[in-house]
Amino acid sequence: MITHISPLGSMDLLSQLEVDMLKRTASSDLYRLFRNCSLAVLNSGSQTDNSKQLLDRYQNFDINVLRRERGVKLELVNPPEEAFVDGKIIRSLQANLFAVLRDILFVNAQMTSAGRLQHLDLENPAHLTNLVFSILRNARTLHLDEDPNLVVCWGGHSINETEYLYARRVGSELGLRELNICTGCGPGAMEAPMKGAAVGHAQQRYKGGRFIGMTEPSIIAAEPPNPLVNELIIMPDIEKRLEAFVRIAHGIIIFPGGVGTAEELLYLLGILMNPENQDQVLPLILTGPKESADYFRVLDEFIFNTLGEEARRHYTIIIDDPAEVARQMKKAMPLVKENRRTTGDAYSFNWSIRIEPDLQLPFLPTHENMAGLNLYPDQPAQELAAALRRAFSGIVTGNVKEFGIQAIENFGPYKLHGDPQLMKQMDSLLQGFVAQHRMKLPGTAYIPCYEICA
Amino acid sequence: MITHISPLGSMDLLSQLEVDMLKRTASSDLYRLFRNCSLAVLNSGSQTDNSKQLLDRYQNFDINVLRRERGVKLELVNPPEEAFVDGKIIRSLQANLFAVLRDILFVNAQMTSAGRLQHLDLENPAHLTNLVFSILRNARTLHLDEDPNLVVCWGGHSINETEYLYARRVGSELGLRELNICTGCGPGAMEAPMKGAAVGHAQQRYKGGRFIGMTEPSIIAAEPPNPLVNELIIMPDIEKRLEAFVRIAHGIIIFPGGVGTAEELLYLLGILMNPENQDQVLPLILTGPKESADYFRVLDEFIFNTLGEEARRHYTIIIDDPAEVARQMKKAMPLVKENRRTTGDAYSFNWSIRIEPDLQLPFLPTHENMAGLNLYPDQPAQELAAALRRAFSGIVTGNVKEFGIQAIENFGPYKLHGDPQLMKQMDSLLQGFVAQHRMKLPGTAYIPCYEICA
Amino acid sequence: MITHISPLGSMDLLSQLEVDMLKRTASSDLYRLFRNCSLAVLNSGSQTDNSKQLLDRYQNFDINVLRRERGVKLELVNPPEEAFVDGKIIRSLQANLFAVLRDILFVNAQMTSAGRLQHLDLENPAHLTNLVFSILRNARTLHLDEDPNLVVCWGGHSINETEYLYARRVGSELGLRELNICTGCGPGAMEAPMKGAAVGHAQQRYKGGRFIGMTEPSIIAAEPPNPLVNELIIMPDIEKRLEAFVRIAHGIIIFPGGVGTAEELLYLLGILMNPENQDQVLPLILTGPKESADYFRVLDEFIFNTLGEEARRHYTIIIDDPAEVARQMKKAMPLVKENRRTTGDAYSFNWSIRIEPDLQLPFLPTHENMAGLNLYPDQPAQELAAALRRAFSGIVTGNVKEFGIQAIENFGPYKLHGDPQLMKQMDSLLQGFVAQHRMKLPGTAYIPCYEICA
Amino acid sequence: MITHISPLGSMDLLSQLEVDMLKRTASSDLYRLFRNCSLAVLNSGSQTDNSKQLLDRYQNFDINVLRRERGVKLELVNPPEEAFVDGKIIRSLQANLFAVLRDILFVNAQMTSAGRLQHLDLENPAHLTNLVFSILRNARTLHLDEDPNLVVCWGGHSINETEYLYARRVGSELGLRELNICTGCGPGAMEAPMKGAAVGHAQQRYKGGRFIGMTEPSIIAAEPPNPLVNELIIMPDIEKRLEAFVRIAHGIIIFPGGVGTAEELLYLLGILMNPENQDQVLPLILTGPKESADYFRVLDEFIFNTLGEEARRHYTIIIDDPAEVARQMKKAMPLVKENRRTTGDAYSFNWSIRIEPDLQLPFLPTHENMAGLNLYPDQPAQELAAALRRAFSGIVTGNVKEFGIQAIENFGPYKLHGDPQLMKQMDSLLQGFVAQHRMKLPGTAYIPCYEICA
Repeated sequence: MITHISPLGSMDLLSQLEVDMLKRTASSDLYRLFRNCSLAVLNSGSQTDNSKQLLDRYQNFDINVLRRERGVKLELVNPPEEAFVDGKIIRSLQANLFAVLRDILFVNAQMTSAGRLQHLDLENPAHLTNLVFSILRNARTLHLDEDPNLVVCWGGHSINETEYLYARRVGSELGLRELNICTGCGPGAMEAPMKGAAVGHAQQRYKGGRFIGMTEPSIIAAEPPNPLVNELIIMPDIEKRLEAFVRIAHGIIIFPGGVGTAEELLYLLGILMNPENQDQVLPLILTGPKESADYFRVLDEFIFNTLGEEARRHYTIIIDDPAEVARQMKKAMPLVKENRRTTGDAYSFNWSIRIEPDLQLPFLPTHENMAGLNLYPDQPAQELAAALRRAFSGIVTGNVKEFGIQAIENFGPYKLHGDPQLMKQMDSLLQGFVAQHRMKLPGTAYIPCYEICA
Repeated sequence: MITHISPLGSMDLLSQLEVDMLKRTASSDLYRLFRNCSLAVLNSGSQTDNSKQLLDRYQNFDINVLRRERGVKLELVNPPEEAFVDGKIIRSLQANLFAVLRDILFVNAQMTSAGRLQHLDLENPAHLTNLVFSILRNARTLHLDEDPNLVVCWGGHSINETEYLYARRVGSELGLRELNICTGCGPGAMEAPMKGAAVGHAQQRYKGGRFIGMTEPSIIAAEPPNPLVNELIIMPDIEKRLEAFVRIAHGIIIFPGGVGTAEELLYLLGILMNPENQDQVLPLILTGPKESADYFRVLDEFIFNTLGEEARRHYTIIIDDPAEVARQMKKAMPLVKENRRTTGDAYSFNWSIRIEPDLQLPFLPTHENMAGLNLYPDQPAQELAAALRRAFSGIVTGNVKEFGIQAIENFGPYKLHGDPQLMKQMDSLLQGFVAQHRMKLPGTAYIPCYEICA
Repeated sequence: MITHISPLGSMDLLSQLEVDMLKRTASSDLYRLFRNCSLAVLNSGSQTDNSKQLLDRYQNFDINVLRRERGVKLELVNPPEEAFVDGKIIRSLQANLFAVLRDILFVNAQMTSAGRLQHLDLENPAHLTNLVFSILRNARTLHLDEDPNLVVCWGGHSINETEYLYARRVGSELGLRELNICTGCGPGAMEAPMKGAAVGHAQQRYKGGRFIGMTEPSIIAAEPPNPLVNELIIMPDIEKRLEAFVRIAHGIIIFPGGVGTAEELLYLLGILMNPENQDQVLPLILTGPKESADYFRVLDEFIFNTLGEEARRHYTIIIDDPAEVARQMKKAMPLVKENRRTTGDAYSFNWSIRIEPDLQLPFLPTHENMAGLNLYPDQPAQELAAALRRAFSGIVTGNVKEFGIQAIENFGPYKLHGDPQLMKQMDSLLQGFVAQHRMKLPGTAYIPCYEICA
Repeated sequence: MITHISPLGSMDLLSQLEVDMLKRTASSDLYRLFRNCSLAVLNSGSQTDNSKQLLDRYQNFDINVLRRERGVKLELVNPPEEAFVDGKIIRSLQANLFAVLRDILFVNAQMTSAGRLQHLDLENPAHLTNLVFSILRNARTLHLDEDPNLVVCWGGHSINETEYLYARRVGSELGLRELNICTGCGPGAMEAPMKGAAVGHAQQRYKGGRFIGMTEPSIIAAEPPNPLVNELIIMPDIEKRLEAFVRIAHGIIIFPGGVGTAEELLYLLGILMNPENQDQVLPLILTGPKESADYFRVLDEFIFNTLGEEARRHYTIIIDDPAEVARQMKKAMPLVKENRRTTGDAYSFNWSIRIEPDLQLPFLPTHENMAGLNLYPDQPAQELAAALRRAFSGIVTGNVKEFGIQAIENFGPYKLHGDPQLMKQMDSLLQGFVAQHRMKLPGTAYIPCYEICA
């Protein structure tokens, strides 16, 4: 089955050179990337959260870019049926397909020839930030004329129903206050606040509702954009995605999630505790229904015990009060605005928040890298937060990920150089998550995969 | 607490004469009507379905119309708190308040002086239809430039959760096909299709979604507009409301409901079986989840047994297939369009469908009126349908409504002149509803409140 | 030649009753009115300023209203060719045709049955004002959300080229300040400011430019709407048209004109000098190129000599300075706004300005009426202004109009009861106009057609 | 005097790197370019057509780019007063200022680092075309959803009043047919059709009127954008500007002009006579008032005598019939559309029309280059057309431009290798222009600055 799709959304004409780049030829990595992301988008409706399964199922799917009189068309060969209603593609999928095309072409133009040669130095923090900015600008994500109103929501993609309904109620209260939502674009805590906000917006007759889904190629197939996403952005990798979240957020809400959510909180604290960011205004609220109070209590204690009372200044925990969450966010917006205005920073992109290289660059948890972490309290708190985030990431890898389990089998437990007290805190945090069934473990008991070398 | 509300929506300036009309003075019936409908709108969020309770609770609520530089303002005294978010009125309620003001003023201008004197004859069918038309036109409900796309959904306001979710799925499929929804504006089957369609519209990036809620003063307090209604219309009474539904509908879906829903079906059959309407194209679908199949089976048998096979030609029953319901509606739209085009009738208002006086005028089930009904099969089917609807309405009144129960106590059972076979059918239909818990009865067993005088 | 025209602009569906009203039948005055105004609109391009000539030329023109699926269509039989480009009607004419239909239907509904019967008393000032308001509201002329920005421009329809270019420059400066224009809708001083403002608006990228042409049935054929008019309104008669100008104006500019323009100034002074209007803010500027300085000098002296220094407080004369004219208008707008705000009056319709019956009602210059005028200085200035306007109107009639010349021939000169000094002023004003060739006279010398009976 | 200007139009946020690029530092050519073009825009109102004079007059003018919360602001130091109305910048100038910023930044990014390094080969025709495309795309000039409707108008910037009024009437007829206008952006024949079309659009209530002014840095100061230009584009040089005209045109009209206009016609014939372009549909009309009939007669004869009857197939001459010009353009639009559709080419950018390097690349009329021209008839007509255009350009330079006159003084007349008959034709064409006062000459008689070396 072959069908042709016209552009929808911000798609421009393509030049002949650009169309040639996306030709399906054996050698083309760019084509594979484009094809797979497109397939993920077309599969949005489905509930599979397994990339491989999706890709295997649609092996005979193909996509071609055709230049046509009104710009460009996409030719889809054997696309998933669910993307169509009575033979016509669902329009949000149509728009998202062209968002994929837009971002992949742009990022490619920036990062390959143009990138490397235009003195764009991918190790240089300023250049990386500039790249993040350029991708968002090209996607027309940065609205000059809007006052601060964008709330980034984080949380697990497989939360339970109580948490889902809670997140939807929070979304509804945000929507009633005409706040917009940006999430990681998949299901669970990434979908619920959008669903709530859509109703809140409708009640307020608010027409400009924005539901930004920010994803990246390695995750889009497993967490395809939920149906409410009306602006899809594909960042080139996870670090740039995290940076983009932080720079476009006017406020951040963290819903319950798995260990990943805890890591994200440490990432944020690594930024917010940086003394260079002491004048930043970025409200951060951790919230969940009363049934999830434990999740945040455990996390909060860990933060307090490792990073100190000071760290708590950067976030507020609100249990079981959606209206209060939204009220606090709404009240913070004028402060965000005033702060940007006085520092001359853009409302739509926070240039001035400092993100240190240890947060901006990826971490690979090899035995060597793990041994190199500094896990002692006698360092600036933001650096400890960043190191903890890395240790954390490594330990999870050692416990549950293929790569980590293998490494542990081959080389024994990670040798960490850190404060024993602090390590104990980490143990207990992880065990708390296990007890709450937020962490899938191969066995039944939690066994640390590391040892301390004081 | 006093707050001032600016107009939203299609509110024009008011003249000095119009403002004077709505002044709160002891003698003013118009003011009471305006105040009570406004209170109902402000109470939309609440779950009370009891008008009296609502009115009692807000006895110290008042509303005043103030002329101001940008037209008019409403002054609310002691309004329900739920209508506000952080002290500001929810915008859909704001718009609905002004819809109330608009319709009450307009209807008053038409039906009082202007009405009676302008040779508007409220017994004359053409004039009644003209009034229905004028109210809808004044509310800007009739869009000249739209192709047929409006599906009227009927069904109970207190359906069970399975039926609610089913109606929402039907709405979603309608929305995916860019159809708009008109309902009676309250909860249950009046809300669910709108909720579904809103998501379908969002997936299709369909911006013009219309959710028309059509109510009337006696019902608005008990069934206040659900939050999705973005066009509220207050018709002066139940008969004009029914006529308005039929004339603006491009298709009608009936979800499961109580006895009222069965009555509505008889009303429609009274119209559609009229030979003068034989060229009308008005798709009518009865649908529900498989759990509700019985409801329609019982109804369908009753129709067949009383009005004959011919009656079945006018509706389709679809069980447990939301996509098919929407697909059939969508496919019928070009036929509706073509039919209107060839007859020169308006897309947005069906002038040509004939509604006989016995359907256009109200029926009061006194003993005398009931005795006067002709319930014999030897008459045109559409007339029997209209008579059955009236008998039906009377029997329900006799069984469960204050007015009817009292009348039965005073004067004994209704004496009906009808065919015994036909009466038996009615018994069994009602008993079927009882068995399905769709009819609240004072006692436990169903006892007919009538007897046949052959 | 027959062609069908679809609605453009604010045309709603028509009801069957309304369409019937406009049927072409011998007896129908309403149809003649509708046909002739429509013909005038279709003839907009032409330069004829003679109604009779136009009507004679298109005797076989006909127009019919047809009800159709998208509301209504107009059938034109033998319309003027100039209204079409390559066989398609020019869209501004199309819109104006439907404005004619809209206003004629509305006014008819108000003034006939509804009018007389709905206790609308056409002698009652409040009811007259209400009618003016209702017509404008129905035409969607009254924009709730706009700040004061509407400048009414008056002046001759056959001004010379220097004056035309000057008025265009004033329009350009008004347009650069984003002011909108309302005129009497014909050529000359009614067209020039619109033409200038259109360019000014374009330079400011101002999209909402309004060019309101307000006319009435007796004049529309002689002064058809110029091509820039984008809102056409047909008031029922000249007095209601004058009242409408005054009530929607946020400022008034008077360009040079003939005697009619002088009469209009007296009309305004009759209003503005009324003590009840002492708190009104309505900037009034008289302006022209330096070549026309004399016109205003003569007028100004007449005002001073008859109504006193006080009268001058109500207008400003600016010679040869378009930017200054526009600057003063622009600067006055916030004062107009503030004034309306504090008095609670509408921005878009000045309810509170008082227009006395002697200005609101028409004046027929019979010998009896002329003899009844009180032209002595010992009365309130605004009453003298109103009386002068009437005397003035009568004298011009006696000198140049068929009706007046005949009356003088039959009954001798008008006998006026007035102050000789004041009459002399009037003589000299008229002679000034004669000297400036602004007044066509049958003979060569100006001979007063009245005598004073002290 | 210092004033800050906010963005208007399609301006996006700027990155920190981009703002740095435009910093005013002694060394920055880019800054000079930006400053001078901005000054030209601000001077749009003035009538000076002398760049140097303008730049001298505003030596103390400066412009700075400031990053601000809503993107960016421009700081103007000592700008021309005429750019402001009551202290606020005229909005079309404001938008044009940001168009300058947009194009200069974009072209710089493409042509410097990104350009050279990204394998963009400025000698490669495909790459040049791609650059032209990219600039237009970035300026959002290429509208995907519009059917062909863009008429490019060429002609002199100092035509006489008769020709100006004629061009305005043609514009009016184009506007009545809802065609849009693109010109070289200055006064005269570049302004008149826009002025006419603006009125035509207003009469048709056509809201999307586009008045594209396409200029380049060396000419913008001498021919600043006229007030109607609502899309300003600055192409990097004259050849790319010519290519851009040809690729976005759906039709071309040539009004009378000087010698430059004749050169442009030869440029077009060099393209249209290329056999590779034989299937192109690009209507080309030469038109003027009857007083200018000679200009086109002389030109037409020259074309016939040098390039043959075949050449005439590519253009139509219409004298004194504005409606016919517009009618032919309008009728051609569906053909253009069909042609693009069948070849799969974009409506908004003609990728497939072939422009040979001898037309795409600039020509410097040195003695050597002139001697190298092949001016014999025994070659493909399109090549002769291109060679004639160059010879022509050189002869004009030798006669009237500083650079040419000097070269002739130093090295004697140009030695041309060409057919004597053909050269005679050129003589007589030039003498015809002299006779029509279309060519300023230093002396009184026309003396050829070349000799033929057969």
